[in-house]
Amino acid sequence: MFKTIELVNGKVRMLDQSRLPLEVRYIECTDYTMVAEGIKKLWIRGAPAIGIASAMGVAIGAQKIRAKDFEEFYSALEPIFSTMMSTRPTAVNIEWAINRLKKLLSTKKELSVEKLKSLLIEEAHTILEEDIEANKSIGRWGAQLIKDGDTIITHCNAGALATGGYGTATAPMRVAKEQGKRIQVIADETRPVLQGARLTAWELMQDNIPVTLITDNTAGALMKKGEINIALVGTDRTAANGDVANKIGTYPLAILCKEHGIPFYVAAPTSSIDFSIASGESIPIEERDSLEVTKIWDCQIAPDGVNVINLSFDVTPAKYVTGIITEKGIFKPQDLKKLHERTSL
Amino acid sequence: MFKTIELVNGKVRMLDQSRLPLEVRYIECTDYTMVAEGIKKLWIRGAPAIGIASAMGVAIGAQKIRAKDFEEFYSALEPIFSTMMSTRPTAVNIEWAINRLKKLLSTKKELSVEKLKSLLIEEAHTILEEDIEANKSIGRWGAQLIKDGDTIITHCNAGALATGGYGTATAPMRVAKEQGKRIQVIADETRPVLQGARLTAWELMQDNIPVTLITDNTAGALMKKGEINIALVGTDRTAANGDVANKIGTYPLAILCKEHGIPFYVAAPTSSIDFSIASGESIPIEERDSLEVTKIWDCQIAPDGVNVINLSFDVTPAKYVTGIITEKGIFKPQDLKKLHERTSL
Repeated sequence: MFKTIELVNGKVRMLDQSRLPLEVRYIECTDYTMVAEGIKKLWIRGAPAIGIASAMGVAIGAQKIRAKDFEEFYSALEPIFSTMMSTRPTAVNIEWAINRLKKLLSTKKELSVEKLKSLLIEEAHTILEEDIEANKSIGRWGAQLIKDGDTIITHCNAGALATGGYGTATAPMRVAKEQGKRIQVIADETRPVLQGARLTAWELMQDNIPVTLITDNTAGALMKKGEINIALVGTDRTAANGDVANKIGTYPLAILCKEHGIPFYVAAPTSSIDFSIASGESIPIEERDSLEVTKIWDCQIAPDGVNVINLSFDVTPAKYVTGIITEKGIFKPQDLKKLHERTSL
Repeated sequence: MFKTIELVNGKVRMLDQSRLPLEVRYIECTDYTMVAEGIKKLWIRGAPAIGIASAMGVAIGAQKIRAKDFEEFYSALEPIFSTMMSTRPTAVNIEWAINRLKKLLSTKKELSVEKLKSLLIEEAHTILEEDIEANKSIGRWGAQLIKDGDTIITHCNAGALATGGYGTATAPMRVAKEQGKRIQVIADETRPVLQGARLTAWELMQDNIPVTLITDNTAGALMKKGEINIALVGTDRTAANGDVANKIGTYPLAILCKEHGIPFYVAAPTSSIDFSIASGESIPIEERDSLEVTKIWDCQIAPDGVNVINLSFDVTPAKYVTGIITEKGIFKPQDLKKLHERTSL
């Protein structure tokens, strides 16, 4: 069993997902700038995973700080916080993790700098463990939506590789299988970075969950043939009104589901719901290098110099979302505010 | 300027499209079995182009026949007809070309075998020339649908490379540009074979038609931003009721257009309309090797042994089609039968 990420001996060890499925290689990040590099270069990706990575990056960065008191320590942390926050803009999880660490520190000003350093390491571990526990809850809630014999379509990778472990969209699949339901998963390859082909297909095959790979173009034809029962995807950031930002191609998939009467569910741990954003229009959409589109590893597939638009994410308006599966239950998009009332401090 | 295909000195010379855009290489097919191989292996592809290739394959195959009379000659042609017919099942154009040659021969039984051989060569040339002329007509009709400043989305390659020349879906783009309209084309890459990235982007750049490449997942986001005005695609086979079989991913694109109020047009020379088929349900949908999905040239992008579904085409029901642009005018899908009444012999 692989580990997406772990903090061990003051280093952050992450599976280099950019090399899957052909190479299973781990990278040991010895300082926080290397963790930030790993996030930018997609050695690690997936909203919950990069949140965890950010917390771990701060934790190991903190160890090297020389400070005599809280103020000096916290000042020295600011550039580390900034570095992590500036890696990628769309997922809310980095912001969420950094804010969680800042809040924790602010309640522990009386501790020595050494104790604060340990606290950050512990909190990074706790964030990872809570992520896995939340995913297991999502699994139990979401499995109720899956019937014996169902074929589930998913997009991108919202599995163990996208999280501390277990996965968000894959969690109900795992639980359903444990419950003895016979399920099939259709993973669309998810260009340009091919998380579906390289990551989802790989991890589901590892876990003996029947998976079939298709190109992104094929979902419509399968739905028309009646071969898809339910869609289950993750999210990088869900707004307060239930608009869902996720990997590019999620929005078309949701429209196809609507057209074919197929329920469209989003697995969203509360760490990925951003109640400070009223609707999807305010979610920043990362655009990445054209090379992701024109080159697949060493293979160039487009003419030199071609113009490219490479939006990494899109926003699915709440009206296309049948339900949002959180660790606290399944909510209709318009009912997400109830969750906020519950989770507000 | 490249030539998709030509018949010269008893050989069929075709651009090897499987190597574009990095290599511009021509293959000289010295016998009909090589032409058939080229069709199966996608050295040449695009419905009108493979129809033309089939006619040319028959013509050069015929040259080597030793026969003393019409019956012997025609018998010797049968396996050549079969070979061409069995290359690929979805496009109607091969069937159309073979039937045209058979019909022609049946009216010329009095000719000598030598004259019949020349007749086939001439008819193959005529089929190519008529294809280009039909495309130019499609261009003139279709350009009426394009306004100055429009952004047109297209799928797969329905350009010069898919035809004898000039293209079907690209024809209105060419005419609109000649008319001085400022247009932009969005070409989605069209996995798995990447005809959009490798062929459409390449040929439009050659002809200075502004083109931007996107992944197949990106169309929805661009439509949501209001950046697409019209969709224009080709067809491999259109049924009598206006159901359209075309490259996989066309059906989702049509649904996205409907959802966003964007007109969806199909460029269909009458040689690609099959009046013998009542609806799209009867159109055979080719499935091709998994390797097209799991490998991009030498790059393997999925786990060894993964299950794959590789449907090469899908069917867009007539209700999603705003209009069908033929060389004889633009028809609503339900009015295609009028065209049949006009073109029936």
